[in-house]
Amino acid sequence: MAEPNFTLEDAIPVLRATPQVLRAWLKDLPELWIRATEGPETWSPYDIVGHLIHGERTDWIPRLELLLAHGESLPFTPFDRFAQFQASRGQSLPALLDTFADLRQANLTRLESYRLQASDFERRGRHPELGPVTLGQLLATWVAHDLNHLGQIARVMGRRYTQAVGPWVEYLPLLSARR
Amino acid sequence: MAEPNFTLEDAIPVLRATPQVLRAWLKDLPELWIRATEGPETWSPYDIVGHLIHGERTDWIPRLELLLAHGESLPFTPFDRFAQFQASRGQSLPALLDTFADLRQANLTRLESYRLQASDFERRGRHPELGPVTLGQLLATWVAHDLNHLGQIARVMGRRYTQAVGPWVEYLPLLSARR
Repeated sequence: MAEPNFTLEDAIPVLRATPQVLRAWLKDLPELWIRATEGPETWSPYDIVGHLIHGERTDWIPRLELLLAHGESLPFTPFDRFAQFQASRGQSLPALLDTFADLRQANLTRLESYRLQASDFERRGRHPELGPVTLGQLLATWVAHDLNHLGQIARVMGRRYTQAVGPWVEYLPLLSARR
Repeated sequence: MAEPNFTLEDAIPVLRATPQVLRAWLKDLPELWIRATEGPETWSPYDIVGHLIHGERTDWIPRLELLLAHGESLPFTPFDRFAQFQASRGQSLPALLDTFADLRQANLTRLESYRLQASDFERRGRHPELGPVTLGQLLATWVAHDLNHLGQIARVMGRRYTQAVGPWVEYLPLLSARR
């Protein structure tokens, strides 16, 4: 059930777990899984890890700091959803997993250094497309964005077997989920 | 992209990773995440781990062995999708995670002991509802079923923040996905 009351005690353990989840899931998989997509213009697990890295570098903490410094007066820098295709080029998946874990750890340390209080979660910033947003919404989105992409990895991988499962496909909603 | 050619080399690493993924994801999470559901009659991450345990005990390997022994002549025992509500009662999540890891390890050892060949994947059994199925479809479903439930965990958790993310909800398809 949706619970609107966002707290850091609730959010941080999820953010802390994500690099471990990705490593446990992907580190020993054959390349066919790592590079699997849902078709042209869709992302593989490898691409998703690169996207999460780019988020650590340019999205969550940089936007938090912009919001703290400028409030609604300065909109966030637009996020490049395709940056990973250049930035990850030539890097192994283990290297990307390490980079993500290091960046996430550093960003959580930075987040904690601000000693945010519940009242801070109402502070406002400006999203370039969505308009006014709160600091609490930004942090909740960081968490939900991780989960969104973990769900995407499950779906991309599961769909490799949409044919192979035969009649069982009707019991496996993920395999026929919309993208 | 769906690839119909099922191989054990492809499938086993995914089956081997799942217990590690669940542990990395869930072991340090506050109870609110572990017990979160999508509303009445829906499952929490805790329930899902119990369901995966029941699958290890009664579904995948027992059905494989029934198929090898009896082919299509004897249908599989119907799977109890609600067994975990009794079986998990009173057990801590770490205990369930350990049980699942042990059962999965033992089942993979058993699977490998059969030294199945590609030709075996065409052998047929009988599902109590779906009718004739092949051994390859059964094994592919084992993998896809893991992924289906990992995707479900991401969705159940993500939806706790459907309100909290505010206007960002439109960028997070998992939060508004159908069940």
